[in-house]
Amino acid sequence: MTMNGAQSLLRTLVDNDVDVCFANPGTSEMHFVAALDDELRMRAVLGLFEGVVTGAADGYARMTGRPAATLLHLGPGLGNGIANLHNARRAHAPMVNIVGDHATCHQQYDAPLQSDIETLASNVSGWIRRSCATASLGADAASAVVAARTPPGEIATLILPADISWSEGGTAVGKQPVPGALEPQAEAISLVAKLLRSGEPTAFLVGNDVVGDEAALATVDAIAGAHAAKVLAEVFPARLRRGAGIASVERLGYLAEFATAQLQGLAHLVLVGAQSPVSFFAYPGRESDLVPDGCTVHVLSEVEESGPKALTALADALGVASSAARLAERAVSDRPTGPLTGGSLAAAVAATLPDHAIVVDEAQTGGIWASPATAACAPHDWLTLTGGSIGFGMPVATGAAVACPDRPVLNLQADGSAMYTLQSLWTQAREGLDVTTVIFANRSYAILNMELSRVGAEAPGPVAQSMLDLTGPELDFVALARGMGVPAVRPDDAEGLTAALERAQSEPGPHLIEAVIPSGF
Amino acid sequence: MTMNGAQSLLRTLVDNDVDVCFANPGTSEMHFVAALDDELRMRAVLGLFEGVVTGAADGYARMTGRPAATLLHLGPGLGNGIANLHNARRAHAPMVNIVGDHATCHQQYDAPLQSDIETLASNVSGWIRRSCATASLGADAASAVVAARTPPGEIATLILPADISWSEGGTAVGKQPVPGALEPQAEAISLVAKLLRSGEPTAFLVGNDVVGDEAALATVDAIAGAHAAKVLAEVFPARLRRGAGIASVERLGYLAEFATAQLQGLAHLVLVGAQSPVSFFAYPGRESDLVPDGCTVHVLSEVEESGPKALTALADALGVASSAARLAERAVSDRPTGPLTGGSLAAAVAATLPDHAIVVDEAQTGGIWASPATAACAPHDWLTLTGGSIGFGMPVATGAAVACPDRPVLNLQADGSAMYTLQSLWTQAREGLDVTTVIFANRSYAILNMELSRVGAEAPGPVAQSMLDLTGPELDFVALARGMGVPAVRPDDAEGLTAALERAQSEPGPHLIEAVIPSGF
Repeated sequence: MTMNGAQSLLRTLVDNDVDVCFANPGTSEMHFVAALDDELRMRAVLGLFEGVVTGAADGYARMTGRPAATLLHLGPGLGNGIANLHNARRAHAPMVNIVGDHATCHQQYDAPLQSDIETLASNVSGWIRRSCATASLGADAASAVVAARTPPGEIATLILPADISWSEGGTAVGKQPVPGALEPQAEAISLVAKLLRSGEPTAFLVGNDVVGDEAALATVDAIAGAHAAKVLAEVFPARLRRGAGIASVERLGYLAEFATAQLQGLAHLVLVGAQSPVSFFAYPGRESDLVPDGCTVHVLSEVEESGPKALTALADALGVASSAARLAERAVSDRPTGPLTGGSLAAAVAATLPDHAIVVDEAQTGGIWASPATAACAPHDWLTLTGGSIGFGMPVATGAAVACPDRPVLNLQADGSAMYTLQSLWTQAREGLDVTTVIFANRSYAILNMELSRVGAEAPGPVAQSMLDLTGPELDFVALARGMGVPAVRPDDAEGLTAALERAQSEPGPHLIEAVIPSGF
Repeated sequence: MTMNGAQSLLRTLVDNDVDVCFANPGTSEMHFVAALDDELRMRAVLGLFEGVVTGAADGYARMTGRPAATLLHLGPGLGNGIANLHNARRAHAPMVNIVGDHATCHQQYDAPLQSDIETLASNVSGWIRRSCATASLGADAASAVVAARTPPGEIATLILPADISWSEGGTAVGKQPVPGALEPQAEAISLVAKLLRSGEPTAFLVGNDVVGDEAALATVDAIAGAHAAKVLAEVFPARLRRGAGIASVERLGYLAEFATAQLQGLAHLVLVGAQSPVSFFAYPGRESDLVPDGCTVHVLSEVEESGPKALTALADALGVASSAARLAERAVSDRPTGPLTGGSLAAAVAATLPDHAIVVDEAQTGGIWASPATAACAPHDWLTLTGGSIGFGMPVATGAAVACPDRPVLNLQADGSAMYTLQSLWTQAREGLDVTTVIFANRSYAILNMELSRVGAEAPGPVAQSMLDLTGPELDFVALARGMGVPAVRPDDAEGLTAALERAQSEPGPHLIEAVIPSGF
């Protein structure tokens, strides 16, 4: 069978295990869209805005370890997706962006939609290629998948001129081998073994390939237990396995003050695929580097190397069995009563969290109690704002639900952040995804109220305050959700919230619960 | 008084006539936010998403000719604003982006929000500077304003590290002179005068500084009338003056087939600050360049030169008085009856269009009748999708209303396009802006249905069709608008629509009307 470029592209993607495409297409992508009917193994999921598309691909990648494709319309379409691509890049999420462009011969004319796609793509992509010939489009796509999947995972962006897509002569490329993570370095393992034996105060700071892996968490916990060391995770992990039966790990605090306290007194900090800790923002008169004076930073494994293998080798060197890990015990949480607060909201989540839930946490200040409250719940995954670019929660929840149709997804979502990519709800409704969104409605950019004083801008005036205020008018998330086909409620108290959570989880499809917590915490 | 950087920046902006700032700030912009209370001449307008912010600044610039400032949060904030910056760049809208960045000393640490802001900015900005010292921040800002305002107008992006903003030692810079448009070239005028006298078939294609200027429109019309020439405007003008008492100008068609017919038979095409016509997209087997064979393209004025002055000089050279212009006559439109269709919707708009309205047209296929239907209405401005990046309408309407508080704004808005930047409604409600949004709800990316067949993808299958379909669930724009504090209705027929338009225009503040036209046209 002869194929056009688009058909060869789709077949190549699917044959290389990329079988979900989050899409917001335009005219230059119409041949790709038409070819979807010739490659029914590809699941195409429409988003009404490109930030939904790229965030969904991030959530999908975090849960499967495999890339989804995105389909984006020229530079502006990629631009709309940049913020969630930024988060995905920080999460080392594998992803293959297909960015349509004008036909090759059309680019000389500077038509209205023309722009420099490469500069936009370079901001977030580890691999970029502009496809130049229909015959090699399949090979380009296969290279993109391999680049995306090569550990630690990255974003590959393939720019696809319309004529390359529509011309005949496409050749699909079969499944290509993907390299695994690099082996850990023996010298690094010996060095860390030695310093652990020294008994000096030591902590591990573990990255994404450890926190997403129960066995690796057990290994590092067993090592730490045997040597009186501490285990810390990065502030914003891509996917943290936690709950009953899993070795728990303490996340480094977002606030530099908390992180400093966690790191205080250390003689050694051992990085396992993690970055050396720095404050999220700089503040006048404070250090950005959070490593305490007198503490030496060591690298057990680089991000391209296998952290789990490095930990196994280290445990072997130390004679520690991972069965010695201290696993979290299951505790059943009481159902909260009384008014809605950050605390009762967290308690309601803990009391109702289903087994094997995927929690997407963009609750910001309102959600600070949710993570500690759920530590002893049934096993679950916790996905966080890796790149700090808000508007990640609803799209990532959408993509996680596509990735794991048998697992319930709970999106803890701040109100201000929800408004960046609210269109996700429509995709959730259209695809019938089991996502329960809880809006933490404090009617404010509350985190900025805190930051406003932390940066030294004391006693903000009324104009400054109005810039952080989301009242006048208040957002009605129940109406907004219903407007996109998602059933929604606004409970009055903690009992109502708990009941709403249980109802949402017992019914198929998406639900939204607006929890108004005016005090903020 | 000593000032910090942020205070000197705000004072400089206002002293240089930039006194509106559309903002979506984050932590690194908190000193700018705090300084707003020290510079009350600056009006700060909060947007819940950066695409609203940049689109509003575009609308403001189109209506005033002056830049607004935007306040954006690092690379991801700028990224969210890129699509509407693309449209603004194509409109030659002057704009000053203030993009906050990490403190200078913090940038070495690759903290989560770090990214390459310059590459993003370069995609849309004619002028980029990273401010390096608090003492020169005022001068940087003044340079940005001058760059933005220098004809034909461009986007200036000032990257502002947090420490440059928070440190003391700022110096405000007073009002700087802004160069005017370049003088037209005498040779070009003589040449065009000569070819008009030749009597060969000639058309003018006039750009933004002509179509926004009633006097220039009269001049070109008088010249064309005296010499049997045609006057055409570009497909998507930034701001077209039209209506009764104004010389009308025919826009080049979006569809290449229509534009080809408009240009057929020409011996000369005279560009007045316009680009030579090309098709919006390329199509298999068709030419992108729309200039017919045998037609010579001439340039009366480049985009940096004054088109109005060039036309006046041309009229003088030809002995044509602009009083000879044929001005559109006022005609009162009948109120439509019966079902809602593209035609009855356009008639309802024509029957109710208030004097001096600003029409922001992103109605796409559903709105093709609206422009011809309103040609004989009272004078108004018509703003269009200059860069082809959808999601421009609601933000531009918001900014136009801020710019012109005494003029009613009517936003003709396609449903699919509305979903990109729907958050604009909240800003309209918060600021009490007189914007009436009419949603053309055809429940489809209807333009793509057309393009799907035009690009040669015949007989689309069910998957392709589903990618262009906005049902399952249907969007409820009445609920969505109410969710953001905007009163909304969904009339059943043309009479109801007309009444809803009149009611919206008689009440202050924003309104939304969802007009369901399932047939699409």
